[in-house]
This record gives sequence, structure tokens and C-alpha cells, in this order.
Amino acid sequence: MHTHNQDTIIALSTPPGEGAIGVIRLSGPSAISMVDEVFFGANLLKAEANTVHYGKIKQADKILDECLATIFRAPRSYTKEDVVELSCHGSQYVLQKVIELLLSKGARSAQPGEFTLRAFLNGQLDLSQAEAVADLIASKSEGQHQLAMSQMRGGISKLISGLREQLIEFASLIELENDFGEEDVEFANRDNLKNLVLKILRVINELKDSFVFGNAIKEGIPVAIIGAPNVGKSTLLNALLNEDRAIVSDIPGTTRDVIEDTITINGQLYRFLDTAGIRDTEDEIESIGIERSYEQIKKASVILFLADINEFHEITAQAFRALPHMENKKAIILLNKADTKKSCAMYDMEEAVSTLTGRTPTLSISAKEKSNISKLKDLLVSLQSSKSDSNVILSNSRHLEALENTSESLNKVITGLDENVPSDFIAMDIRHALHHLGLISGEISTDDLLDSIFSSFCIGK
Amino acid sequence: MHTHNQDTIIALSTPPGEGAIGVIRLSGPSAISMVDEVFFGANLLKAEANTVHYGKIKQADKILDECLATIFRAPRSYTKEDVVELSCHGSQYVLQKVIELLLSKGARSAQPGEFTLRAFLNGQLDLSQAEAVADLIASKSEGQHQLAMSQMRGGISKLISGLREQLIEFASLIELENDFGEEDVEFANRDNLKNLVLKILRVINELKDSFVFGNAIKEGIPVAIIGAPNVGKSTLLNALLNEDRAIVSDIPGTTRDVIEDTITINGQLYRFLDTAGIRDTEDEIESIGIERSYEQIKKASVILFLADINEFHEITAQAFRALPHMENKKAIILLNKADTKKSCAMYDMEEAVSTLTGRTPTLSISAKEKSNISKLKDLLVSLQSSKSDSNVILSNSRHLEALENTSESLNKVITGLDENVPSDFIAMDIRHALHHLGLISGEISTDDLLDSIFSSFCIGK
Repeated sequence: MHTHNQDTIIALSTPPGEGAIGVIRLSGPSAISMVDEVFFGANLLKAEANTVHYGKIKQADKILDECLATIFRAPRSYTKEDVVELSCHGSQYVLQKVIELLLSKGARSAQPGEFTLRAFLNGQLDLSQAEAVADLIASKSEGQHQLAMSQMRGGISKLISGLREQLIEFASLIELENDFGEEDVEFANRDNLKNLVLKILRVINELKDSFVFGNAIKEGIPVAIIGAPNVGKSTLLNALLNEDRAIVSDIPGTTRDVIEDTITINGQLYRFLDTAGIRDTEDEIESIGIERSYEQIKKASVILFLADINEFHEITAQAFRALPHMENKKAIILLNKADTKKSCAMYDMEEAVSTLTGRTPTLSISAKEKSNISKLKDLLVSLQSSKSDSNVILSNSRHLEALENTSESLNKVITGLDENVPSDFIAMDIRHALHHLGLISGEISTDDLLDSIFSSFCIGK
Repeated sequence: MHTHNQDTIIALSTPPGEGAIGVIRLSGPSAISMVDEVFFGANLLKAEANTVHYGKIKQADKILDECLATIFRAPRSYTKEDVVELSCHGSQYVLQKVIELLLSKGARSAQPGEFTLRAFLNGQLDLSQAEAVADLIASKSEGQHQLAMSQMRGGISKLISGLREQLIEFASLIELENDFGEEDVEFANRDNLKNLVLKILRVINELKDSFVFGNAIKEGIPVAIIGAPNVGKSTLLNALLNEDRAIVSDIPGTTRDVIEDTITINGQLYRFLDTAGIRDTEDEIESIGIERSYEQIKKASVILFLADINEFHEITAQAFRALPHMENKKAIILLNKADTKKSCAMYDMEEAVSTLTGRTPTLSISAKEKSNISKLKDLLVSLQSSKSDSNVILSNSRHLEALENTSESLNKVITGLDENVPSDFIAMDIRHALHHLGLISGEISTDDLLDSIFSSFCIGK
């Protein structure tokens, strides 16, 4: 296990770059005394918890900065250790110098996520809550934000812990039976155990089902725009992106490569998949671009089928017929270039196409003129189930894997009970199930697991 | 004057981007009550000054974030107004939502530097101290840092205010004489006045002299690397940059285009000027690249004259002779490609060249092998006067301009006294001098002046 909690760690906790303020955070038994050594203006050793003090950071007789020191005392802090936050002027030079000075006083540079790791090791957060902190920081849409917030507030942990406790009770009774060896006693009521396991399996299945929804929130709903070349795919993507990019760009510094192909509509992130290369010979279209685009389309949960409103008869009629057959996909047919529509058409094009394709939602748009783009967004929103059946939503693939393993072990328990296998086998399967459940909240953890989780955090958190 | 101090301003005070922590700052009469409306976990209205509180930010019944609120109460805050700092999770989405929520409660987005502007208007800082805050945040070398720190701590302001007060005393005596009109009284002793003005002029001249030094610290000492094509100018620049870039890059996010041609040596910033195009015909070299490079060389205070150690006889001998004649420039002759030096040379090349050029410091190096680069740095350092004659160093060109104008008016006062002009003319010149002196510390300021100063600040400061 991680046993370096006796040292005091330090890191810049605010993003790098020039700003008004930069915050340096220290945590550990010497956090307050280390800062006190270099901080002039207040006696931090005697400072009350949760108070802020103004002073100068000095290196020998040279003033490095005038700053504010906030004092937190164990266990009332993020890490449950003594914590000092130094709010300095936001010059990278100054912040670096202050950090170097405190390193020279014995602090150690924190690893990514090490503050949160300590919070976990000291019982402030469980593992899934700690993971939610990283998700919260990375959140870019309302959906992601609410999901992370709910997980951070312990939604999934409470559910899992409840199930686990009940299972532990049975496990200990069965272990007790084993202790009696040959005596053939039965402390654990088999019917009750089976009912409990079935109940737990039901909850796990609901959670597993919620993953599709949770993952869509977290990673974005995958949408593929498909269609023949020159039908306006890029123009459509730009039309969709432009309107939202402005909102995203209210926040300077938002990563360009992320907003390039994701947009937030109604608080939900959509992730557009690149599907260049639907060929325009009839045969190839009929197979909906099997080759390069096939994998992307398989990943998508929504397909936007784009066609030129003036040419759809000739080129795309067959594709439309193929569309409803795409398993488990939601599809929208878009009749693009409505601005150039030949006015002689006597019938309602949208209605005609929709009927032809088994009532696939159909909309005429002009990507170039950005007309009906907001209607398209409404359509996208209406396709999504607005909630999961489960109150608690699974969004972390690590949790999904742990639940799948739990499920497997519990199914063995059921089989074992049905087939009256010796109780020590049943006990072993229950222990496996408990192990996998425990991995979610971190009641069971390994160094490798912790390393893989916390190494993806930013430094200073 | 700026009179919007009745409203409450808000801004993100930490750099944009993902980080562990983001700090939102509010200042103004409603800062505490606005945050209290949306903050659940502590009664901020009753919170003591300089205390930190943990709670949840809620929009209706939706939790936006769990965060820390630090309460500062007027006048014990940066702006001397009520201030709240919200330390949130460093997600741009979350920070934006929290700011939007508080804007909806009546806060106003702060202009760049508006917190510091309020600190100035409320008497917390004078103008030159406020300017030093921006310099401090932008500082990238020890020299810049110390300069900004000294100015922020009021070095120049104290000096100027002292001079100004003495001058005001005489001004009022002279104004009094004018009130008596025709009566020909003389309250202000002319000899004492002249002595005072001469003393002030001496101080101003010292300050003006310190500007070259101060400006070099702030903007970097301008260094031109000149020499014939293919003599290794770029290789030398890279050799100089590489060694320092590693240090600069300890801080992720340091602007690339800045470190591309500035380096810090011994805490002092050096700014390398691009001087492509010294032609290699003998005539042209003799005139030291009059054409394109001439302006750059004129701006430089140090010239590195680079020559190929194997070819200097033929190509550069004349240039060496020209070097010492470049007015006010410090020069170093570098004999590059020492790694390829033909071993048959019987005499000390460095000594020979140095003698030939009137004892210009000469060093053989290999830019490619990075040999003697640290000796070159030592040489650069030794060329700089390590201090200014003045204790207070001028680095701000606005201050220089104000001092030049003051100087001009004071010289008129001297002339007036010598020529016995009527006291109302002298009074006018003194008033002009007082005006210009007052501009430095902001005892006199205009909206335009304040706008031009604070608009260069970052938002949130």
C-alpha cells in the first residue's frame, strides 16, 4: 500500500499560465510549519483552522511574493491532513520560485492526483468518489457535470456498499459453517441467500444497463453523418459546430481538438464520428459503405443520413430503404441543400421520404444557410431517452467490468445453491463477488489499481 | 472619474484551462450577500473576516459544485471592498456555470484589471504600485521579479511623493504671493526654492539614468549576434537557448514564442535580436551590415561578433578593427567552430584577436559542441553593470515620460528664477511640474490614463 503519508507534498493546483492568482497547495504533517518558516506576517503555527492570513514569502532577505495563506487543520481538510493553500500572484516565475523554496524546506512534489489519493487513503472519499472528482474537472456539458456530481456525492458507492454489507453477512455465516467442518450445520438460510443474490443481480443488471446511457453522457452520444460525397457532410458539421462553438469559446483555452467534433445540445454532449468515404456507385451505397466507414457506423448510436434534396431519387432511394434495417441505430434523414430546391416539386418531400423509409424522421435543411439546424438539434434531443431506468447511472468502464465480474461470481452462487454444492465452494464464489464489488468503492484496492486511477488526474488535485 | 464602485464585479482569477482548482473572485458591496444566496453550508452573512467555509453552490435544487468560500470584509481586502473568493473544482464548465449563476444574481463581469483599479481608487495602492502588480505577474526572470516587487512595495512612489510634498510647500507660498497681487511681498525664499528645484532635478536625472538599466531588466538586455552567413549564428542561438529552455520549461505552458529568443542568465533576461544578412563581401562587412541589420544593431546594447575560427583572417579582420568603434556598444568576439580548428596554429588565437581589436573580449567556442557556452554567459554577465547608481530603478516608460516633462517644467522654473520673471509664471511652471510628478503615483489621474494602464491587465486581477 501507499505508505508515504508521513511526508508533505506540494503542487501548483491552478492551471499553468499567466493569471491574476496562482494557488500552491501543501498537504502533510509539516505543511503548516514549512510554510511558516518562509511566511512573514502572521504566526501560522498558532493560526486557527480555516483562516486566511496575509504575509510575505521570503527567501533569505529577498521577498518572493506577497500572498495569502489559508490554513486547514487535520482532519478538517480535503486530504484530512494539515493543508496550506498559498494564493500568490499568478506569475509562473514567482510560483515556481515559491515552490522551489518550499521544496528546499523538505516538501516533495506531488504526483498527479496525490492529494485526492490521500483523501481516499484517509477515508475522506471512496474510490468511485475520487474518480468522480477527475470526471468533474473534465466535465464539459451539463450531463457530464451532473453525472460526476452525483457520483462524487456517493450515489453508486452507497448502493454498492448496501448490497455488499448484506452479502458479507451471509458470507460470514457460510464461513462459520465451514469452520464446523464435517458437522453439517447450516447457519445461513439457503432460500434467503438465494433471494438476496437474485436481488443483487437485478440491481447489478440495472446498473449495467444504465452504462450505455451513462457512457453516452460521459463520452458523448456517438453520431455518424453518412452520405454520398459532396452532399454537404462537412458543411453540416460546421453548421452544427459553429453555433455551439461560440458558447464553448466563452471560456478561453477550451481545447480546440475536443470542440472540433463534439457539441453540446441541451446539456448533452454529442460526439461526431468521421465517416468519409461512402462511395457513390449504387452497389456500394446499398451496403452503406461497408469498408472504412463501417466500424464508425457500428460505434454510432445515431445516424444522420444526408442526401441532396434535388438528387435523392436517383442516388439515395435504395439507401433510405436500407436505413431502418440498421440494428439498434436511431436514424434521421436529412434532405440537404433545401435552399437550392427546385420549386416544381409538387409533393411534400419530407413526408414522402419518411413514408418511403418506414417513418424515419426526415427533415429538409440547408447546411450552407444554416436553416433548420435548430430543428435538427431538437430532433437529436428527442431521440434520446431523457433518463435511465436506474436512479444511479454507471458511467465508468472500470465499474462496469467489476460489476460484470461480480455478476459472473453471483451466477455461480445461484448455480451452486441450485445444485447443492458444498458450502465452501459457495463461500468462495461469494468471496469473489465481494472482492469485485469492493473494487468499485475501493474497500478493496491494490497499488496497481490506485496507480492506474490516480495517474490520470492532473497534478495539484 | 470611474464611479461604478457601487456594483459588485466578478471574474475568474486563475488562468483558463483545466486544473485542480479555479478561483472566482467577487468584489463590491453585495459580494458576500450574492454568494450567500447560492452557497449552502455556512451563513456567509455572519462569517467573520478572513475565514474559509465549505459548502455547495446550488442553482435551484441542482448542485453546481462543492467549493470553499473565503470571506474578506472591507476595508481589509485587496480592493478595500467586501471580497469573496470561491475556490471551485477546476472545470471550465463548472466555473462558467457558477459565474453565470452569480451574474444572474446581479454581479457584473469585471473588466481587465478592475480589481486592481478599485484597489487604486480606494487608496490601497498608488498607480505605480498597481502597474507593478501587472509587471510582477508578467515577470519571467529574477531581475524582472525583483524590480516589480520593489516598485510594488512603493520604492518609486515614496521618492516621488517626498519630492512632490516639498515642492507643494513652495508652490503654496508662491500662490500666496500672487494673491497679494501688486503688493510685492515674497513669502517663498527664492534661494531655498532654487536649491530645492536643483535637488529635485538631480534626483530626477538619476532616475532617468536608471531607466536604461531598469528597462534592460524589464524588457531584456538587447543582444545582436552578427557575423557572415554560415558562421554559426543560429547554432549559437540554439546552444544558448537550449540550456535555459529546460529550466523555463519546468513550468508547462510557458509561452513558446517568448523563450524562442530570450534567455535568462544569472537572473537577467537577454533578448536576442535577429540580424540575418551581414553580407560577405569585404566592403559590406566593413560597414557592418548597414542595410537591414543596422537598425537592430543600433538597438542592441551588446554585440556578439561571430567568426569562423579557421577563416577569420581572410574574412573578418577588417570587421574586428571596426568593432571597437561602435559607439556605446559592448562587444564580444567569438571564434566559432573551435572543434574544427586546424591544429597548426602556433599562437594563442584569442589573445591575438583581442590585441588586434583593442582588447575586445574574445573567446573561442564551438556552438555545435556547446563548448565554452557557459564561459560566454559569464562574459555577458560581466559586461553588465550589476547595479544602478540610484537605489530606486525606473523601468516604466510612462514614468520616464512624466519625469522628462517634470524636468522640463523645473528647468523653466530655474530659468525664471534666474531671470526674475513674475512669480505667477514661476507658480505656473511649478504647477506643471507637480502635475507631471503626480501622474506617476496617480495623485493626478484621468480616465484615459487609467484605462490605458488597466486595460493591459489580465481579467480577474
